[in-house]
Amino acid sequence: MKAVILAAGIGSRLGVTAKPLLKVGGIEIIARTMKLLSPYVDEFIIVASKFWKEIDEFVQKSGYKYKILVNDKPEKGNGYSLLLTKDLVDDNFVLVMGDHVYSEEFVKSAILGEGIIVDANARYVNLSEATKVKVKNGRVWDVGKDLEEFDGIDTGFFILTKNVFNVKLEKEVISVSDIVREAKIPVTFVNGLFWIDIDTKDDLKRANFLIVKNSVKGVGDGIVSRHFNRKISTRISAFLVNKLTPNQMTAISFLVGIASALVAFIDIRLGGLIYQLSSILDGCDGEIARASLKTSKLGGYIDSMLDRFVDFIFLAVLAITHPITLIPALFAIFGSVMVSYSTEKYRADFHENVYAKIPKMRYLLGKRDERIFIIMIFCLLGLVYEMFVIIALLTNIRVMLTMHIVSKAKRCLANSEKS
Amino acid sequence: MKAVILAAGIGSRLGVTAKPLLKVGGIEIIARTMKLLSPYVDEFIIVASKFWKEIDEFVQKSGYKYKILVNDKPEKGNGYSLLLTKDLVDDNFVLVMGDHVYSEEFVKSAILGEGIIVDANARYVNLSEATKVKVKNGRVWDVGKDLEEFDGIDTGFFILTKNVFNVKLEKEVISVSDIVREAKIPVTFVNGLFWIDIDTKDDLKRANFLIVKNSVKGVGDGIVSRHFNRKISTRISAFLVNKLTPNQMTAISFLVGIASALVAFIDIRLGGLIYQLSSILDGCDGEIARASLKTSKLGGYIDSMLDRFVDFIFLAVLAITHPITLIPALFAIFGSVMVSYSTEKYRADFHENVYAKIPKMRYLLGKRDERIFIIMIFCLLGLVYEMFVIIALLTNIRVMLTMHIVSKAKRCLANSEKS
Repeated sequence: MKAVILAAGIGSRLGVTAKPLLKVGGIEIIARTMKLLSPYVDEFIIVASKFWKEIDEFVQKSGYKYKILVNDKPEKGNGYSLLLTKDLVDDNFVLVMGDHVYSEEFVKSAILGEGIIVDANARYVNLSEATKVKVKNGRVWDVGKDLEEFDGIDTGFFILTKNVFNVKLEKEVISVSDIVREAKIPVTFVNGLFWIDIDTKDDLKRANFLIVKNSVKGVGDGIVSRHFNRKISTRISAFLVNKLTPNQMTAISFLVGIASALVAFIDIRLGGLIYQLSSILDGCDGEIARASLKTSKLGGYIDSMLDRFVDFIFLAVLAITHPITLIPALFAIFGSVMVSYSTEKYRADFHENVYAKIPKMRYLLGKRDERIFIIMIFCLLGLVYEMFVIIALLTNIRVMLTMHIVSKAKRCLANSEKS
Repeated sequence: MKAVILAAGIGSRLGVTAKPLLKVGGIEIIARTMKLLSPYVDEFIIVASKFWKEIDEFVQKSGYKYKILVNDKPEKGNGYSLLLTKDLVDDNFVLVMGDHVYSEEFVKSAILGEGIIVDANARYVNLSEATKVKVKNGRVWDVGKDLEEFDGIDTGFFILTKNVFNVKLEKEVISVSDIVREAKIPVTFVNGLFWIDIDTKDDLKRANFLIVKNSVKGVGDGIVSRHFNRKISTRISAFLVNKLTPNQMTAISFLVGIASALVAFIDIRLGGLIYQLSSILDGCDGEIARASLKTSKLGGYIDSMLDRFVDFIFLAVLAITHPITLIPALFAIFGSVMVSYSTEKYRADFHENVYAKIPKMRYLLGKRDERIFIIMIFCLLGLVYEMFVIIALLTNIRVMLTMHIVSKAKRCLANSEKS
């Protein structure tokens, strides 16, 4: 299947040149769209206007097969841009707007649809700006910004047939809405999944935050992360997502972690606070990576390894500066790594996430976010010995419970498979 | 496909009743054969004689579909047993001897063959007892124990067609050899893979050892394991394989490990020696599990977790009884777990074994067998502080090198995929 991307729009209200080249959620709008469509599409037809050279240059680096079509009369409307592609597409093709940001879940559902993809539960759009759709007998009845009565919002995503090119319209300015209204194309509802249309600078800011928030995985998050860290880290990520790469963010949170340990040599209260800050920042690299579709296994691997080093160095500094605590510190340091070892070893052996497979595991305390929060509290109170005893107990008991819960779950599974 | 198992033999020289029920390498001969054939075979036809009831009772528990046929004239030879199955098999069927032990690799190759499977490089058989095969034009020319000239050894494994039942033989005693010689069936060579025929008590002892040795995985073994531990552990496993389950062996090596730590409270030299013994025994559970086809992911998971605890407790005892060493002990304990974490996290993230994928990793020192050996040596010398410093350096440097090597390998791979 081919995909037509209408990229002739000019981001006048955004103060940019070519809107499809605008970075949203850490990646240019058109790059996100092409990446998400690439599993289903073998060629892109991009219709551009004034900034076609910039777009061409950018898309060339992407490695996807594409053709660029120049519309030198963009004032004739986006429907006119669509009509230009008539001889380049096959019987069935995808049509998307070059200034819409779609999530992976949205594209996965929309690609299976037919006709216009309409969202009856468009949570993220500005209703006054949105194009509404009125449906009758499963087909488009009316489309427009000013419809009083409507069934959903036009998502700018279409699965079309060549029939749309047969529509006769005697107008100077032709919009895609005019064409689909006239062609009475089928309607497919894809409701409530994330997509957004970028028109203003406020839209952009909101989009950055929503994309980051939408990309929190969180299956291994502890209660501190869920209720506190993520609320801050997503805001930081939204601010940084267009400025830093995930690896740069990993480096920053690692350096803040190391700094917290160095500060703890002099002032354990301040050190504890910075350690907690590094724990918040530790969420950002993953958020930025997922938001900008730049996740990498190597990035995840290195990030986890560095987390272990930060945890060790912070606890080691406290133990060395408070020699009386060295024995509980041995247990706390061992237990802290073992929490991670027990879940990663599980993932390596069983090829599944322990929290996803055994939901009971989610309620076990002692995950990194929880440990760091506890350590910070005790640092603020100046209770280093008590902190080590609590972390030692918490982590080692957690690891033994993990072994117990995993054994029970796996034996139970083996028995049920037998019978 | 159906499989005929000739199980009418009586283990007269082994002092047992039904030879197929003899445990070899931790599992009854017939159970091993059925388990290895089960991916390819949907029904087993078992020909038994005097001990058919015992065999029937045993096979019933296996859960495989089977029929048992009673040959009440076993003295007429195993060829006569085969002829009894005429109306129960389809056009193509497998024939195996109930007293032969095959490895998984052998069965995987043999099942793709045609006619008699012959081994031209039969490393594990007693040549004077073996049935030899002379081949001509890809077919059996002669078969027998006393052939002067031959091309290979009869493995007792056949992929036959119903043609073999058309053979006319006017003899009182009919062997399978008589039938295949007369039918001039095709020959397939499967050379040098492990299989063995059990006739005497010496065969049995040898088979136990060979099966265990053949089941050493060893891809993550360090140099101490390769050149020392495995040489002893395989002998221990061969002795215990028919007596203990893998889980019982895990428990024993764990308890010996804990005992070594307790002894180290009193005498670090003796403690170090027992710790090294537990390291040797730690290889046995995996050997027994693989030899007896009883590997389990849960078993592997629990074994690894317990190894981490033993290592921690042993080092913690040394650190606590030598308080001067507590600071290097922190680093050594952290580094020791991190060696395991860094390889298991790799396996979880990349779904592959780091030693198999990046051979360079095999030469990094600091694996468990190597650490324990070093710890033992320093314990014997009474140099606890030096031991901790060396283990701390060895493990932490190893982990950093691991991160470096993995990053390089993965980036190199990503680049080569791009171009």
